Amino acid sequence: MFFHVQRLINEIVADEPDPGAANALQEGLGGQFGEMRTMMQYLFQSFNFRGPDAKPYRDLLQGIGTEEISHVELIGTTISRLLDGSPRYQGSPTDPVDTPGAGGAIPLELAKSAGNIHHFLVAAQGAMPVDAAGNPWNGSWVYNSGNLVLDLIYNLMLESTGRLQKCRIYEMTDNATARSTIAYLIVRDQAHENAYARALESLGVNWRTALPIPKTNAEQFPEVARLLDLGLQSKQYTFDLTAQSEAGKIFQGPSPSNDGTNLMATEQAPEGVPSVIAPERFEEFSPGLDADLLELIQATAEMEMEPVSSSFGPVT
Amino acid sequence: MFFHVQRLINEIVADEPDPGAANALQEGLGGQFGEMRTMMQYLFQSFNFRGPDAKPYRDLLQGIGTEEISHVELIGTTISRLLDGSPRYQGSPTDPVDTPGAGGAIPLELAKSAGNIHHFLVAAQGAMPVDAAGNPWNGSWVYNSGNLVLDLIYNLMLESTGRLQKCRIYEMTDNATARSTIAYLIVRDQAHENAYARALESLGVNWRTALPIPKTNAEQFPEVARLLDLGLQSKQYTFDLTAQSEAGKIFQGPSPSNDGTNLMATEQAPEGVPSVIAPERFEEFSPGLDADLLELIQATAEMEMEPVSSSFGPVT
Amino acid sequence: MFFHVQRLINEIVADEPDPGAANALQEGLGGQFGEMRTMMQYLFQSFNFRGPDAKPYRDLLQGIGTEEISHVELIGTTISRLLDGSPRYQGSPTDPVDTPGAGGAIPLELAKSAGNIHHFLVAAQGAMPVDAAGNPWNGSWVYNSGNLVLDLIYNLMLESTGRLQKCRIYEMTDNATARSTIAYLIVRDQAHENAYARALESLGVNWRTALPIPKTNAEQFPEVARLLDLGLQSKQYTFDLTAQSEAGKIFQGPSPSNDGTNLMATEQAPEGVPSVIAPERFEEFSPGLDADLLELIQATAEMEMEPVSSSFGPVT
Amino acid sequence: MFFHVQRLINEIVADEPDPGAANALQEGLGGQFGEMRTMMQYLFQSFNFRGPDAKPYRDLLQGIGTEEISHVELIGTTISRLLDGSPRYQGSPTDPVDTPGAGGAIPLELAKSAGNIHHFLVAAQGAMPVDAAGNPWNGSWVYNSGNLVLDLIYNLMLESTGRLQKCRIYEMTDNATARSTIAYLIVRDQAHENAYARALESLGVNWRTALPIPKTNAEQFPEVARLLDLGLQSKQYTFDLTAQSEAGKIFQGPSPSNDGTNLMATEQAPEGVPSVIAPERFEEFSPGLDADLLELIQATAEMEMEPVSSSFGPVT
Amino acid sequence: MFFHVQRLINEIVADEPDPGAANALQEGLGGQFGEMRTMMQYLFQSFNFRGPDAKPYRDLLQGIGTEEISHVELIGTTISRLLDGSPRYQGSPTDPVDTPGAGGAIPLELAKSAGNIHHFLVAAQGAMPVDAAGNPWNGSWVYNSGNLVLDLIYNLMLESTGRLQKCRIYEMTDNATARSTIAYLIVRDQAHENAYARALESLGVNWRTALPIPKTNAEQFPEVARLLDLGLQSKQYTFDLTAQSEAGKIFQGPSPSNDGTNLMATEQAPEGVPSVIAPERFEEFSPGLDADLLELIQATAEMEMEPVSSSFGPVT
Amino acid sequence: MFFHVQRLINEIVADEPDPGAANALQEGLGGQFGEMRTMMQYLFQSFNFRGPDAKPYRDLLQGIGTEEISHVELIGTTISRLLDGSPRYQGSPTDPVDTPGAGGAIPLELAKSAGNIHHFLVAAQGAMPVDAAGNPWNGSWVYNSGNLVLDLIYNLMLESTGRLQKCRIYEMTDNATARSTIAYLIVRDQAHENAYARALESLGVNWRTALPIPKTNAEQFPEVARLLDLGLQSKQYTFDLTAQSEAGKIFQGPSPSNDGTNLMATEQAPEGVPSVIAPERFEEFSPGLDADLLELIQATAEMEMEPVSSSFGPVT
Repeated sequence: MFFHVQRLINEIVADEPDPGAANALQEGLGGQFGEMRTMMQYLFQSFNFRGPDAKPYRDLLQGIGTEEISHVELIGTTISRLLDGSPRYQGSPTDPVDTPGAGGAIPLELAKSAGNIHHFLVAAQGAMPVDAAGNPWNGSWVYNSGNLVLDLIYNLMLESTGRLQKCRIYEMTDNATARSTIAYLIVRDQAHENAYARALESLGVNWRTALPIPKTNAEQFPEVARLLDLGLQSKQYTFDLTAQSEAGKIFQGPSPSNDGTNLMATEQAPEGVPSVIAPERFEEFSPGLDADLLELIQATAEMEMEPVSSSFGPVT
Repeated sequence: MFFHVQRLINEIVADEPDPGAANALQEGLGGQFGEMRTMMQYLFQSFNFRGPDAKPYRDLLQGIGTEEISHVELIGTTISRLLDGSPRYQGSPTDPVDTPGAGGAIPLELAKSAGNIHHFLVAAQGAMPVDAAGNPWNGSWVYNSGNLVLDLIYNLMLESTGRLQKCRIYEMTDNATARSTIAYLIVRDQAHENAYARALESLGVNWRTALPIPKTNAEQFPEVARLLDLGLQSKQYTFDLTAQSEAGKIFQGPSPSNDGTNLMATEQAPEGVPSVIAPERFEEFSPGLDADLLELIQATAEMEMEPVSSSFGPVT
Repeated sequence: MFFHVQRLINEIVADEPDPGAANALQEGLGGQFGEMRTMMQYLFQSFNFRGPDAKPYRDLLQGIGTEEISHVELIGTTISRLLDGSPRYQGSPTDPVDTPGAGGAIPLELAKSAGNIHHFLVAAQGAMPVDAAGNPWNGSWVYNSGNLVLDLIYNLMLESTGRLQKCRIYEMTDNATARSTIAYLIVRDQAHENAYARALESLGVNWRTALPIPKTNAEQFPEVARLLDLGLQSKQYTFDLTAQSEAGKIFQGPSPSNDGTNLMATEQAPEGVPSVIAPERFEEFSPGLDADLLELIQATAEMEMEPVSSSFGPVT
Repeated sequence: MFFHVQRLINEIVADEPDPGAANALQEGLGGQFGEMRTMMQYLFQSFNFRGPDAKPYRDLLQGIGTEEISHVELIGTTISRLLDGSPRYQGSPTDPVDTPGAGGAIPLELAKSAGNIHHFLVAAQGAMPVDAAGNPWNGSWVYNSGNLVLDLIYNLMLESTGRLQKCRIYEMTDNATARSTIAYLIVRDQAHENAYARALESLGVNWRTALPIPKTNAEQFPEVARLLDLGLQSKQYTFDLTAQSEAGKIFQGPSPSNDGTNLMATEQAPEGVPSVIAPERFEEFSPGLDADLLELIQATAEMEMEPVSSSFGPVT
Repeated sequence: MFFHVQRLINEIVADEPDPGAANALQEGLGGQFGEMRTMMQYLFQSFNFRGPDAKPYRDLLQGIGTEEISHVELIGTTISRLLDGSPRYQGSPTDPVDTPGAGGAIPLELAKSAGNIHHFLVAAQGAMPVDAAGNPWNGSWVYNSGNLVLDLIYNLMLESTGRLQKCRIYEMTDNATARSTIAYLIVRDQAHENAYARALESLGVNWRTALPIPKTNAEQFPEVARLLDLGLQSKQYTFDLTAQSEAGKIFQGPSPSNDGTNLMATEQAPEGVPSVIAPERFEEFSPGLDADLLELIQATAEMEMEPVSSSFGPVT
Repeated sequence: MFFHVQRLINEIVADEPDPGAANALQEGLGGQFGEMRTMMQYLFQSFNFRGPDAKPYRDLLQGIGTEEISHVELIGTTISRLLDGSPRYQGSPTDPVDTPGAGGAIPLELAKSAGNIHHFLVAAQGAMPVDAAGNPWNGSWVYNSGNLVLDLIYNLMLESTGRLQKCRIYEMTDNATARSTIAYLIVRDQAHENAYARALESLGVNWRTALPIPKTNAEQFPEVARLLDLGLQSKQYTFDLTAQSEAGKIFQGPSPSNDGTNLMATEQAPEGVPSVIAPERFEEFSPGLDADLLELIQATAEMEMEPVSSSFGPVT
């Protein structure tokens, strides 16, 4: 069973909208090696897991799989912010754009040359479950052979490829909003790469100097370097509410990435930051409320609500 | 940010394996109107949500979206159990099947006439992100127009269609494992149908006697009737760890389904039941460990682990 | 602009339901060489047609394209009839099936072993835009190169392949409902094959003895032989309401199929037969009306209606 | 059975070619909420319709479905015109472009940066059955649950989403060719939205002030405002040749869009405008005829043709 | 540049037709981890290869990629043989089936319950580029990250998964035709697994006891055991006509599978066996020749032919 | 069984990188009418071929199918060269780009506006099995009806469409690298068009003046004219190592393209040119080796290798 807090797993730095960067980030969200894929792959692997004796491995998959849901939330929100308000930013011929198409205006003109026209035509300046070339996310990508060693090798390759692609995205934009999330995911992908590499070490493989992949010189990516200094590539959270996870039996000892750190699984979750709700975009008819509907919304927002009894939290 | 407990949201009743029923249930997992779809649709709608004044609506989407992850876990696990051990159950020519293919045996012969041969050939008797006709889950299904009224109408239709299809699946099998989950989801789909119908009522629509859809005579489905007696169709949980959800401002008052109940959103989550790990399937080489690897696994399972510090739980 | 009459282009002979035959016929409806494909291909070719001097060729495409819409209607309705009531026919454990799932009954049990489980789970015993292997119809199949000779060669190949596949479907079932439609389409595909072959003859190609493809001995398929005796393989209708089509300039002269007939394009349309509305299927919740809704439907059906003024018909 | 007249359902205003606008319009043709989808969905719903008592509802679906074929023709032709001759318009380095690639010229250079390179590489400056992001039309989009209320809700949502997306396309271009068709379809989508909303009213739902969706201020879109003044959003044609449609029993009374009009279904069809055939595009080898072939074409165009006997028209 | 000899890379043992086994083998041909995929993946990796200093690695990919084309030929031909004549084998109501559908016969009746109806309806009892669930082969599966270590890990995983799935297919049928090819491919997949594992060893990874995956007890699969005794799992051919391949610099030394053998790359190619042409299938209209066409074919087959001059062979 | 030589089938002329041209060429590689399609279609047709008496036709398919593998190699390599180094060419802000992202640089910025962002994000400046609109290659395209005449007509249409599209690509770019390969393939497509047209002539069809399609005036494409002067459109190679091909019985006599040449099949293969390995691209982490790994690679490259014994070559 899953729970939520209204916090993002990492901060998204503010910057100008940038539809091109938003589209590049879609690969990290809905691409073949993106966060939706890792999330679904690890969750399916944990649902179908076999071998009661191998519980620490199941718990490792379950914990990382749960973290990936938060990554989907983070990168989805980042894309949404990069798109938000981009018509105005790009200098559309109407000013302001809060009267959609008034007098025949064309506030969404930039959509025709955007990375993905669907961001404006279909998704109302929001994130979509597609990759950077516009291909929808596909369930056939989820790999779960049932063979433990093979699943771990695939997962190691998957995280490394995800990190490789994010390093390339980093090199495509210097937008601070985009980079704050990309840098965070580069480092967390390495943590997961370490997790699967370490699990394979526990099954006998010796990686020597082959890891990490790619062999980035992280100090050259300033936003990444800052997070490595905090040791985020060597931590794994449990995201487990009742302390039953045994993932920490695997995620410990010297890092397979040979960076001199030790792996640590002693925190339940990062602190995160509060999430906020995006403003209206009139030119998209989103949320598309007129005065009558707004009044009804207002009435609902002011209603009383009965208190909620808690079984698994909140911590008070 | 998301969290997990090692409990299933509802109990799965034990029964014989049944690959045909497992395949029918795949529609409820990976189909166009299945749980992966609702989960992703509501999560994307909450990430991309616009209109700070409409927070209760965002929170309703977020809460139901979080519940759907647990539904994916529930139905995925159910399918896995329905498949687990089916070669032996169907009377394969080897007995036991714990020596894969020994002497040229064909323990997986039934796979050729199974609902989906991939359950045995690709997924090691586990669930897959595909529908009952074998089509992979597809991101183009996720609907998020940005227009609030339209998104709510779509969601109402989506839940109703999901419930309609599950009523049909109920009529395809009397396997108790399959039915325990299908019955639970029929009732929860109705709760979500009520949630979206109620949200539309708050925006002015009057449903009169049109709901619920389909107009099942629930007392004729015994497993469903039992859950309706408990009022599960009129409850909505928050799954929110820090009591910030305002979904309860919407989910209250008389049920739009006209069944005489009142909607209630006063519980954080159901209690759930512990989840267990499936046994090995030698004929699938899953997890495929030999004596050497088993020993290494055992060593890991016996390792010490550092305690985990908690920020968002566990409740102790 | 397009119009409709409430008549089917050919009679569908009554017989028992047969889900297996229904599924085989799906190839003729939603398959790569089925009627949806020919319909869309010829309509797109006529919308995008270039060369004002070549109007007879455009009109030939337009007329055949319009006929294909009626073929989609015919084969869709045939599939629907082959599925209709099949649960009862197969001896489901409940009798009657007009109380869906009463007492936990499983009236839709046969769905699990049907040709396509979606016929029962998704489509309520109706036709779907998919092929016989369950793949959805796909727009990438539509071929329209713009080059006239090439488009005509493709169309000739398309009709021949459609006819080849329908000859194979004929050999898969002796259900009279299925065969009445398959036989009709085999003969009409040959008429279209003749049309494109004749168009290529007008551009210089000499087919000699290569046609028809396949070289069926039609007298061995009794249902086909009857229609050949009527000369249906050598007629082309215009389906054109205002007599502007010049297709008849092409569709005349000796048949390229070398069967001794002459091509004739002197009729607007066949007479057709009235279409009827299918009965309710309670086990599918289709149309799913309860007493309240039925009463409202009845009230609507009894309403008065203003007369409709006609510009393009009806013939009175 | 279906018929055709060589007239477009609405006039296409002349303007410069505009490949970017052409590509945006593809969403309205081959997109998930475009005209091919509505056409196929309503036609399948009418083929598979259940409930002889509910004939007015079947006839409503059938009439709108038939209109959608004419919309496919209209928007397909519009896209074709927007693309036609665009190489010359964009100032390609050859002038004229009627000698394809002479001396190594690159008349199609603009294709590399067009909205969809396939418009020039595959489709010879014509329309394609794909969406604005290049995804082919897909049969899995067609929704037909068999449940009448549910199908009507889906159709209402479908028309509203189509209209929402077309409002956004309107805001992407001020090309008069594109806008003449987009404005017409915005208004006709609203007529269909009204039709399904009214059908649901007849089944008990009260929409109050929720419609139309989106709540456009139509007077701000001048091309749309003109058509609203003519009341086109409140008319429904039958497109039925023999006056058997009972759709008018539903489509009457005050508009659910609350615009003060009454719904009217008293016309068979709009008058339309004659369709014309596009000129040759040598740089595309379309139609690709040389002198020999032209002569053969000419001979065919001058042939005599036998008169066509009419059963269902023409009106003389 | 590529060449061909009219020989199959391994012998296909004769046995009865078996459409169910044919369909299971489709996974090995057109599945996500089948031979078309390995072939295309390694060929693309060799075309796009970077790093002139790493030629032995490029040559290894090129050699295995070339072998995979022969595997596609082998498994395609095997499927074709398993399907060939299956209508008669299953006891169809006509005997003989060489008069297609004579008198309304249904010789292809078994197609409706075959693993894939397309084998009979579309492919004339031949192999198709699809997987065992009927999904077409898809180019998005081809993995080529450009990062050498990552590509090698992926390839190792790919071969291991291919072998795992083929071990499962082995357990689904005891048809000797199917097993002769499956057993051969199980052993060759292990050779390729060894090749990629060895290449990674040369880059520092130490596999210890983790390989092979799966850890089959090969002596329990008699057809496999025979080939292991011949050492086929430890050989790699060059398939290189002019002795430029340096793959042998990698493929040498003790096998990473720990079976006591040494890797050897000292043969250009296996000897192979002659390939034969399948008989006609009248019920499929394949090849569909009548007396006239047969006479023309015969005339062609008897024609003289000029001698061919050879640059790269044949060895005379 | 297949073999390889380390030579390209035609020379690739050097020129500047050009990502836009690279993307246009993808249609010729991974498009519906590209080289991967022809390769797979002819190979499947030859595997599944029926009719021992028709061996010359099987051999014709086999020979052209084998040539197409070399075309895949040629166009894949061409795309790779067109992409190679393109960041530097476009004037990226870092110079040199051999330190990926140093100091936050954005060397891959151009990827956001490239024809296909995946060329830089996924494929490391290499070719992909997708078309020019980014759609992955799809197995459902492979046509093999089993009917010989029909398969030959399809193949004729396929080659003509391929050539038509390549003529359009020629008109999109004057990059010499792109054109050297496009011109070669235009001419070879015509040779294959001739082969299938000639095969149909041997079965009775008379093409008169209909061919070639398109009716290009080749002398206007200088790079093509040069190859026509060499008669490459009228030659067919066997690519057969042991002189068993009988394709020459068909491929002889006057060309169906009416260009005054005679068809000739008297050469085994063209001479070809040596292939080279591309340089490293640091900004792509491809191959991504650091000093440690480079040293290991070097050690491997310097190893001794045992000689290879040859059965089918090499020519020494």
